[in-house]
Amino acid sequence: MLNETHDPALRSWVASANLENCDFPIQNLPFAVIRRTASSEPWRGGVAIGDQVVDMAAVTAAQLFAGRAAEAAALAAQPTLNALMAAGPELWSALRLALSRALRESAAEQSALAPLLIAQAELDYALPCTIGDYTDFYSSIHHATAVGLLFRPDNPLLPNYKWVPIGYHGRSSSIDVSGQTFRRPNGQTKAADADAPTLGPCKRLDHELEMGVFIGTGNTLGEPISIDDAEQHVFGLCLFNDWSARDIQAWEYQPLGPFLAKNFASTVSPWIVTQEALAPFRVPFTRASDDPQPLPYLSSAANSAHGNYSVELEVQLQTAKMASAGEPATTLSRSNFRHSYWTVAQMIAHHTVNGCNLRPGDLLGSGTQSGPTHPEAGSLLELTRGGKQPITLPNGEQRLFIEDGDTLVLTGYCQVDGARRIGFGEVRSTVLPAPPVN
Amino acid sequence: MLNETHDPALRSWVASANLENCDFPIQNLPFAVIRRTASSEPWRGGVAIGDQVVDMAAVTAAQLFAGRAAEAAALAAQPTLNALMAAGPELWSALRLALSRALRESAAEQSALAPLLIAQAELDYALPCTIGDYTDFYSSIHHATAVGLLFRPDNPLLPNYKWVPIGYHGRSSSIDVSGQTFRRPNGQTKAADADAPTLGPCKRLDHELEMGVFIGTGNTLGEPISIDDAEQHVFGLCLFNDWSARDIQAWEYQPLGPFLAKNFASTVSPWIVTQEALAPFRVPFTRASDDPQPLPYLSSAANSAHGNYSVELEVQLQTAKMASAGEPATTLSRSNFRHSYWTVAQMIAHHTVNGCNLRPGDLLGSGTQSGPTHPEAGSLLELTRGGKQPITLPNGEQRLFIEDGDTLVLTGYCQVDGARRIGFGEVRSTVLPAPPVN
Repeated sequence: MLNETHDPALRSWVASANLENCDFPIQNLPFAVIRRTASSEPWRGGVAIGDQVVDMAAVTAAQLFAGRAAEAAALAAQPTLNALMAAGPELWSALRLALSRALRESAAEQSALAPLLIAQAELDYALPCTIGDYTDFYSSIHHATAVGLLFRPDNPLLPNYKWVPIGYHGRSSSIDVSGQTFRRPNGQTKAADADAPTLGPCKRLDHELEMGVFIGTGNTLGEPISIDDAEQHVFGLCLFNDWSARDIQAWEYQPLGPFLAKNFASTVSPWIVTQEALAPFRVPFTRASDDPQPLPYLSSAANSAHGNYSVELEVQLQTAKMASAGEPATTLSRSNFRHSYWTVAQMIAHHTVNGCNLRPGDLLGSGTQSGPTHPEAGSLLELTRGGKQPITLPNGEQRLFIEDGDTLVLTGYCQVDGARRIGFGEVRSTVLPAPPVN
Repeated sequence: MLNETHDPALRSWVASANLENCDFPIQNLPFAVIRRTASSEPWRGGVAIGDQVVDMAAVTAAQLFAGRAAEAAALAAQPTLNALMAAGPELWSALRLALSRALRESAAEQSALAPLLIAQAELDYALPCTIGDYTDFYSSIHHATAVGLLFRPDNPLLPNYKWVPIGYHGRSSSIDVSGQTFRRPNGQTKAADADAPTLGPCKRLDHELEMGVFIGTGNTLGEPISIDDAEQHVFGLCLFNDWSARDIQAWEYQPLGPFLAKNFASTVSPWIVTQEALAPFRVPFTRASDDPQPLPYLSSAANSAHGNYSVELEVQLQTAKMASAGEPATTLSRSNFRHSYWTVAQMIAHHTVNGCNLRPGDLLGSGTQSGPTHPEAGSLLELTRGGKQPITLPNGEQRLFIEDGDTLVLTGYCQVDGARRIGFGEVRSTVLPAPPVN
C-alpha cells in the first residue's frame, strides 16, 4: 500500500539523501544498530538518511516525536531491534511517517533533529537483533536446478520442489554483520576414489547471494500464520551471504542435510529495509503454465498480484592482490530477487503451517538467488560449473572458488518507473586462512 | 573424576533423598528453573534433593555459601541458568561441593537451609535456559540402520555414517519443558500413487527417545574445541523427546533434511543432571573390529576409556482411555545411552572443528537412542516396523503411531555397582488434535 512516505517527489534537508544514486533517500529509512567507531557507547538503533544516521536514542531523549511514533522510537533506541520488531506494523508505520515528515525539506523539526545525526563514516554496526532461529529456504528454482545437476546429475530437481517451499534450519550463533572476517573452515571430505575421508581446509569455499527476511511479530506455538496475514509479520529485508563449504557438504549432507558446510559463518548487511519501504517494488508471483499451482495454504490473490520483490542484486569480489594494488572489487554476477520461485509470504505460511512458532528477530534466508541465465548465478559453484571452468578476473587472477584474503561484497537496490530508487547498502566479508589442523 | 560428592555412603538430612529408588539422592543434585505453581514469583534456579528443591534465590539471599560457591549460587538464582552455564567447571564444582556438604546428615547448615526447601509437588518448571541454537545428532547406529531401511531399503546406512557424527540444525523456538502439550501438526504429504500432495494432519506422529546435552562454556567463532577439552564445555544432560512427523518428513526431506517434520514441538525434562554427577557412570567408547577407527580429531585416550554414559532409558505411553480409567502409563521400550555410536565429546569436537561457535545453553540432541535389539527401539517407526505391525497395549488398544490425547513419558537413571543410583526424573508431553486446515 503506497502512502505519502513513498512519494518520489519528497526531498530531505539532508542534502546527501537527494543524490540520484543514494541508497538511502527519504523514501527508504532503513534500520540498523549503531555506535561510534571504536567507542564504548551503548549500541542503539539508527535510521539511515543519505550519508547520515538518525540516532534513535538521541531522538528519544530529545522527545522529538509524540504518540505511537514516540513509543516506536523508544523501542528503536534499545541495543537490539527485537522489541521494535515485536511491536507490529502500526508502530512501524507511525515511526516511518514521523521520520519522513521530520526529515523533509522545510520540516519544522530540522533544527532540533540536525544535531542528532551522525555521519555513517563515523559508525560501527552490530547485528540488528538477537536472532533466535535462522531458517534457510531454497527458493530459486534456477539455483536448485543448477546445483541439483552437480550433486545428482540424473535427478536435478526433486519431485517435491514445485510443491514445497524447501527450507532447513541453520545456525544463529555464527551469523555476524557486514565486516565479518572468518577463518576458512576445516572439515571432513572424501575423494571419490579414496578409502577414507580426511580432515583439512575446505577446498571449495563459496558465497551464496541471498536476501534475508527479519520476522517482526511472531506467532504462538500451534497457531499457523495464514498466507493472507504473513506479510504483517515481516519487519524488513536485508542482504545476506550464506557462506558454504561445497566439498564438506557433499560428504556430510546425506541423509539429514547440510551442517558443518554451512554453520561456520553467515553475514548480514547492517541495514534492514522495511517491508513498507519496499511497497513500490512488489511484482507478481507467477507460475509457468506447465507448473502446478501452489496448494491453497500457499495461495492468495494478493500473493499472486504482488507477492514478489524486485531487488537488483550484485556480487563483487576483491582479492587480496586487488586490494593491495588499490583496485576496486569486480562484478561476479547480477541477479534479481523477483525470480524467486516462492514468495516471502509463502515461506512464512509454509514455515508455520505445522504450528511452528516464529519469534521477533528470527531470520529467514531466501536461498541463493540465481536468475534464469548462467551469468545470473548466485554462487561460484554455478558460475564455474562445479569448479570446472575458472573465472578470469580483470587483473588476470583466476578463481574456481574463494581463496584466502578474498573479500565478497553483495549489494542490492530497487528501481522501477514512478518510484524513487532505494538501496540496501552492502554486506562485506573477508576470508582468512584456516587454522592448523591438529 | 570421582570426589567426595560421589561417595555412595553419603546420606542427607532430607529423608526422602535416602530412599532406595529416589532419582535425586545427595549424589545427584541436578538443576532446574522453578517457581511455586500458579504463582507470579520470579523464576529462579533450584537443585533437587529427594522430593524437595533447594531454592537458589533463597540460598543466595541468605548468604549461606562463601567464595566461589556463593558466586555460583548467585548465578544459579537467575531466571535462566545461562550465566551459571557460562561460568565453567570450577564454579559448577564449587557449588556442588557446597550443596553436598550442606545437605549431608549432621551438616551445620541444616537449620538455616531447611526453611529454604520447597516441595517438588508445589513447583512449576520453566525451560532451564535460553537455548540459542539446538543441534540434533544421529548417534545411534541401530536407529540409523533401522530408519534407513525404511526410507532407503537398498541403502540403509550411508557411507559417511561411520566417519561423520551426523547432525543437523533444529528449531529452538518450539522446545518446551516437560508438561508440554502441543497440537498435532498439519503438513504436506504425498501418497506414492497420488499425482499431487495434500495438506492435512500428520498421520505418522512419533516420539524420539533422546538425551539432551546442555553446553556450558562456549567457544569463540573460528576456534575449534578439541576432543580433549570437549567435556569441559558440557554443563549436563537431560531427557529429550524430539517429536517427529514421519509422513511429512518423507515428502519434504530431500535434499536439505527434515524441517516441518521436526520443528513443531520438542520436550526437555526440567532437571539437568550435571556432568560431574555422571562421573561414576562413564563407560568405554568402542568400535567393532571391522569398523573404521575415528579420525584423529575424534579420538582421545580418555574418550576411548570412558567416553560414553550408561543411562538406562525407558519410554512409556498413557493413552487418553488409560488416563480416564486411572490406568498407569505402559512401557513401550527400554534402551541405554551407552549404545551411542558417537560420544558427546565427539559431537562437540565435530560440531566445532570448522570453527562453529557454541554458546552457553545451546542444546545438543543425541538422536534417537535405539539399542541393538528390536525391543530397544526409541521410536514407534522402528517398534512397528514402519507402521506395519501394531503394538497392543495392556487395555487392548493398538498403536501404530501416536494418537490424539496420548501422553508420552521418558525416564532415565544411572545404576552401576559401587555408586549410588541417580535419576533424571521424567519428561512428559501430550498430543492435542490438529487445528482445522483452511
